[in-house]
Amino acid sequence: MLKKISHVGVAVKDLNAAEAIYARLTGKPCEGREEVEQQHVRLAFFHVGDFSIELTQATAPDSPIAKFIEKHGEGIHHLSFEVEDIRAELARLKQAGFQLIDEEPRIGAGGCHIAFIHPKSTGGILVELSQKRTS
Amino acid sequence: MLKKISHVGVAVKDLNAAEAIYARLTGKPCEGREEVEQQHVRLAFFHVGDFSIELTQATAPDSPIAKFIEKHGEGIHHLSFEVEDIRAELARLKQAGFQLIDEEPRIGAGGCHIAFIHPKSTGGILVELSQKRTS
Repeated sequence: MLKKISHVGVAVKDLNAAEAIYARLTGKPCEGREEVEQQHVRLAFFHVGDFSIELTQATAPDSPIAKFIEKHGEGIHHLSFEVEDIRAELARLKQAGFQLIDEEPRIGAGGCHIAFIHPKSTGGILVELSQKRTS
Repeated sequence: MLKKISHVGVAVKDLNAAEAIYARLTGKPCEGREEVEQQHVRLAFFHVGDFSIELTQATAPDSPIAKFIEKHGEGIHHLSFEVEDIRAELARLKQAGFQLIDEEPRIGAGGCHIAFIHPKSTGGILVELSQKRTS
């Protein structure tokens, strides 16, 4: 089951410049930064209510974020849904005809288990499933 | 103050086809439809937790949604923040250097007062402010 929308990922060219824009937009400072080496990205987070905006800058030319910006420009890169059981949800969506980018979950920001669904099968949106790390 | 993210608007070519996809994705039926004649759009809503996905199909070739799809293809069109006082928030954002598309709020889906901020000034995202109708 999709519990809630947890964040939107926003592809940006310059994390410092984008951070300044989003601090002005939300009226709040950035809540934290993180580097996810496996995905060649550097992130900055802003919280609005129960929801986060995840600014994402590529740290290598072959990062998916660099390729996204090359093709589409800066903007919303993905929409992330929080789920309780990511493997069960991946199985449900595969059964329902969605095209999985990740058949198996991998580790994303904050140690969450994440997996992506291809935008070709969702009507144009890169959908992320995210299951919180059990500590 | 931006209270919370209320919804993402998704530009779609065929509302019936998109509605079927999002029913499968969210595992729930569509919560309702609405036509906003002033903006030449037809909408279908899906709720996930406290958040909505607003599928939007153009009903006229000069609708902003038709132009968006022509340029970008289907996908996320805008990110909507709920605010308590839309005029105060528009004044704050204008003062902070954001480019307002709507200097004055107008009436959107559900009778909300809405106004858009230009993506050129937000790092690529069309931002909507939305104030609930006081009944």
